[in-house]
Amino acid sequence: MSTAREKILSTTSHLLEKQGFHGTGLNEIIKESGSPKGSLYYYFPEGKEQIAAEAILQSGELTADRIRAGLMDSPLPSDAVHDFVLKIAENVELSGFGSGGPLTAVAMETATGSERINSACQEAYGMIEAAFREKLLQSGFSSQKANEMARFITAAIEGGIILSRTYHSGEPLRLVSAQLKTLLAAFNTGKNKK
Amino acid sequence: MSTAREKILSTTSHLLEKQGFHGTGLNEIIKESGSPKGSLYYYFPEGKEQIAAEAILQSGELTADRIRAGLMDSPLPSDAVHDFVLKIAENVELSGFGSGGPLTAVAMETATGSERINSACQEAYGMIEAAFREKLLQSGFSSQKANEMARFITAAIEGGIILSRTYHSGEPLRLVSAQLKTLLAAFNTGKNKK
Repeated sequence: MSTAREKILSTTSHLLEKQGFHGTGLNEIIKESGSPKGSLYYYFPEGKEQIAAEAILQSGELTADRIRAGLMDSPLPSDAVHDFVLKIAENVELSGFGSGGPLTAVAMETATGSERINSACQEAYGMIEAAFREKLLQSGFSSQKANEMARFITAAIEGGIILSRTYHSGEPLRLVSAQLKTLLAAFNTGKNKK
Repeated sequence: MSTAREKILSTTSHLLEKQGFHGTGLNEIIKESGSPKGSLYYYFPEGKEQIAAEAILQSGELTADRIRAGLMDSPLPSDAVHDFVLKIAENVELSGFGSGGPLTAVAMETATGSERINSACQEAYGMIEAAFREKLLQSGFSSQKANEMARFITAAIEGGIILSRTYHSGEPLRLVSAQLKTLLAAFNTGKNKK
């Protein structure tokens, strides 16, 4: 894949994460990525909606990869998810609260707007849930429990990111990490497992 | 308080909830609220940022009132929160997935942008957490546990709203209602209570 194309997508992902879909203009993508306008329209003839949809799918893939890698560090899902969420808290802090939750703002803004963007957001969240689900299935969760908990983990982390970015503090995410650990630890002993 | 002023604020809240801060223009507020431009600048001489900050605070108050009213229906927090989140799921479905989470998109978009908007979002989330906290304190939670669980409930609901709006389905919120019930029910028996 070309470097110019990649640069446009990674710049767009970053801007969407920071300020959402409507807050991100084509001119800003051009300026921040250092790509000439002609190059942008060469790779993305349909303009901003096309770029955003591809950037969202790429964010979903990258996030799912990071989740998979992060969860490998501990065998127990309760520890693995706990430690992974602590890492998110650190990253949100290190970013100065401008990143974390690459899909959140865009997903909300466009839920009933652009069908193309909404569909990309659905697919991207699906990838993220799948990464959590895999770990749970490997650890002996039933298919239904793995689906449910993967979705709940995703929801709780998204909410933690919103509060951490809003309050300018990693504390809400650390609280989410602790609560998810408690919930998931119930499965370590076989309790609730079916 | 004047009706024109109120109409501008409620219209703005609705637009922010649906499409975020950057997606909402002054002209759209004028058009949707039916207020003449002069009236808008009379009540809000500082323009869009001022209107948005006031609309966010009003959304926080209204949401906190709804939480307080909703949680009164059941004495146990586990039942009360469960039933309240089910009501949110219904409302998100009834809205066609364009409403629910009045603060979410704005809070993300402006976390490192406008200090005034960020400060309004912090205050509004604070009101929402306080409404949950009150119920937990009344039910015998320690001050620390009530703070923690009020924040976790807020985060999980926010995440559930994002997923429900994105997937165009009330199911993620219903899942959140069930998981929060499980977590909170541990306190009904006095377990983990301190």
